[in-house]
Amino acid sequence: MPSPTSNENESPDEESDPASSEDVFKILITTDNHLGFAERDDERASDSLIAFEECLQIARDENVDFILLGGDLFHDNKPSNHILLECINLLRKYCLGDKTIGFKLISDEKINFSSTVQSNPFPWANFKDPNLNVSTPVFSIHGNHDDPAGSTPLCPLDLLNSCGLVNYFGNLSSLENIDIHPLLFRKGETNLAIYGLGSIRDERLHRIFLKNQINLLRPTNNPDDWFNIFVIHQNRVAHGPKNYIPEQFLHEFLDIVIWGHEHDCRITPEFNTVQKFFVIQPGSTVATSLSEGEQLQKHAGILHVYKKTFKMHRRPLQTVRQFYFLDIQLTDHIDEKALKTLSNAKLEQKLDKILTDTINELLLRAQNEHSGHPKQPKKPLIRLRVDYTGFDIFDSFNDIRFVQKFSDQVANPKTMINLHKKRESSAFKTN
Amino acid sequence: MPSPTSNENESPDEESDPASSEDVFKILITTDNHLGFAERDDERASDSLIAFEECLQIARDENVDFILLGGDLFHDNKPSNHILLECINLLRKYCLGDKTIGFKLISDEKINFSSTVQSNPFPWANFKDPNLNVSTPVFSIHGNHDDPAGSTPLCPLDLLNSCGLVNYFGNLSSLENIDIHPLLFRKGETNLAIYGLGSIRDERLHRIFLKNQINLLRPTNNPDDWFNIFVIHQNRVAHGPKNYIPEQFLHEFLDIVIWGHEHDCRITPEFNTVQKFFVIQPGSTVATSLSEGEQLQKHAGILHVYKKTFKMHRRPLQTVRQFYFLDIQLTDHIDEKALKTLSNAKLEQKLDKILTDTINELLLRAQNEHSGHPKQPKKPLIRLRVDYTGFDIFDSFNDIRFVQKFSDQVANPKTMINLHKKRESSAFKTN
Ligand SMILES: [Mn+2]
Ligand SMILES: [Mn+2]
Ligand SMILES: [Mn+2]
Ligand SMILES: [Mn+2]
Repeated sequence: MPSPTSNENESPDEESDPASSEDVFKILITTDNHLGFAERDDERASDSLIAFEECLQIARDENVDFILLGGDLFHDNKPSNHILLECINLLRKYCLGDKTIGFKLISDEKINFSSTVQSNPFPWANFKDPNLNVSTPVFSIHGNHDDPAGSTPLCPLDLLNSCGLVNYFGNLSSLENIDIHPLLFRKGETNLAIYGLGSIRDERLHRIFLKNQINLLRPTNNPDDWFNIFVIHQNRVAHGPKNYIPEQFLHEFLDIVIWGHEHDCRITPEFNTVQKFFVIQPGSTVATSLSEGEQLQKHAGILHVYKKTFKMHRRPLQTVRQFYFLDIQLTDHIDEKALKTLSNAKLEQKLDKILTDTINELLLRAQNEHSGHPKQPKKPLIRLRVDYTGFDIFDSFNDIRFVQKFSDQVANPKTMINLHKKRESSAFKTN
Repeated sequence: MPSPTSNENESPDEESDPASSEDVFKILITTDNHLGFAERDDERASDSLIAFEECLQIARDENVDFILLGGDLFHDNKPSNHILLECINLLRKYCLGDKTIGFKLISDEKINFSSTVQSNPFPWANFKDPNLNVSTPVFSIHGNHDDPAGSTPLCPLDLLNSCGLVNYFGNLSSLENIDIHPLLFRKGETNLAIYGLGSIRDERLHRIFLKNQINLLRPTNNPDDWFNIFVIHQNRVAHGPKNYIPEQFLHEFLDIVIWGHEHDCRITPEFNTVQKFFVIQPGSTVATSLSEGEQLQKHAGILHVYKKTFKMHRRPLQTVRQFYFLDIQLTDHIDEKALKTLSNAKLEQKLDKILTDTINELLLRAQNEHSGHPKQPKKPLIRLRVDYTGFDIFDSFNDIRFVQKFSDQVANPKTMINLHKKRESSAFKTN
């Protein structure tokens, strides 16, 4: 069984590795980079590009063998010329160059890289192309945001694949009986199989699993000598009985599942005691929603694989815009007596002060916790979810006017305050 | 003064050249390829791609030094993923590979390839990039169809430039005082300067010329030793006093003007006796309108330049869909007496027969004139411009029903017939 370790800010040297680097795969893992998210927001337009570039820099600095992406590289199936250009520029800058490729890809690439609708005229990994000098190959599945669409179903990864900048895999020709042919890598004594499955509608994939119509094709020769990774991009959290993929659906021979789509960063491997595999959920590199989970420190991972063992090294990203999410219960700040005795104007002043103090505290915290990286933006994202149940007088609270005073300090003034009420009419307990 | 020759189907060997090939530039010239034109038309969807591929094949077969495009490579500023992918695939297939580059580019590439808005991170020609193995460099200006647009003005050529598949030049940083820095090439004893100017609104460029605010920067060292080409993409035909560029505006030191944008193929160099330069108008490689000029045989050109002389070799394209345009004057077919004596039904039968016979003749002609190239489509484009002045009874002629019988033989049944009337009420002369 694999024995994972995971250390924050671990030094990138290989001292703790059980073997010499000629036998150890080093793989940069990141997912849900959402290039193009908030592209039209003056403040946040570059956030997705900056974080993705940091991942590429880490990959280069730590001299990884390759980069593995878990889908949603792009926020849209049809990214703007600007976003596509910036992505191409980044990949050309960081992934082409002189560097010996220290591993082999021995699976049938015609199968791995044949895409759905039209034949791929370059059915081989980019680093094997004699016309391209690839230093760091990128392998990627698609997500639901950048999934194949159109009359000739294509996604931006197809474009990057044709450019020779990304090796796009896990796009299946049939959804009736799914056969997944892994990428089979070899590095010294380590054999690594990576199974990829681009995003499919959850209900559909759920049904396919229930019907046992999904088949991970293991190498017939010494199948137990392979370290097995499955990269998927689906709901991990149940949003209903069938629109997620339960972990127990996944095959027990797997060693690691890399789970894309879920944006909460859970980069530390989580052991599924039933299935006996680890799940790694890298999370997004840019907060695409103001939900609580997006405020977790975001990471890239450096996965080391040696024979049947692995280690996951976490790399906290230094350039991601800070995000603070806070739940406020007004009843914790204004008691029933005050509510009944104070004038509306006084109560509004009280609310204003509560919110202002909270935001100022968070702004101070953001200042202190700033990574110091020149590319980390200065203005944080802030989200206050304010439960004002029992305070009907605040129905008319003008939060648009209120947030104006923070418009120079917060990245998202207009969406900073979320006033909401519980169903019950009063929040104060009566018994 | 240059002495041009131009022979249809000339053999590609260099026997007739005045010098050894080490001194002679061979350049494939094509323009207005309009990739993506009629993309949603089942019949014609691939026409633009097929013709462009033929140009690339000619370039490869004739072992040219490079390819020069005159704008409108794409029909849209934002081509579909499908069209962008196919274009990338074609360029990767035909323009990357092992071939010694036999010429030098000696101008300041930082200036040649610095684009307008954002700095180009790869300000050098693709064949000089150590990570790319380029066999046939492509140089292109933009047209009005694929001109830079958006908040960060970008065009699809920027994407291809970033991919290292096209060298995009002639995109100016300022339209106040235009300085055009040429690409300066050297091959053996031949010095070649190519000035490029991407499409600008005609009225604007007209004004700039009148104000003498456009400056072609000639090499200071032996300026007369250079062969000078100017590539532009503007109206050559006057559509009004100021929305075209008169040839006499262009600089007299030029040897050749390559004129993009005009779709009529006038590949044979035309000497301007006042300006003492030749104009070459390659025309489009796909008919984007059913106008008379688009029916001319379409060509790519192989331009040979040796010192201050050149030759233009025409290469008729074999894969372009055939197009027949015909003007029909009903008065040539139905005389005044018939009009007055025959019933409406009889007259309609007569019209039907005239059109049917004409189309059948054209279909037979198309069959006989088919190039035999397996990629040339079988169904021709046909356009009958029918002047029915004097035949008001045909106002209600149902051409939609009429054309149905040809829907399996003609590529454009719905637009095949264009019934029109002159202003005058009668077409028959009365004096
Ligand atoms: Mn996502
Ligand atoms: Mn997703
Ligand atoms: Mn055009
Ligand atoms: Mn044009």
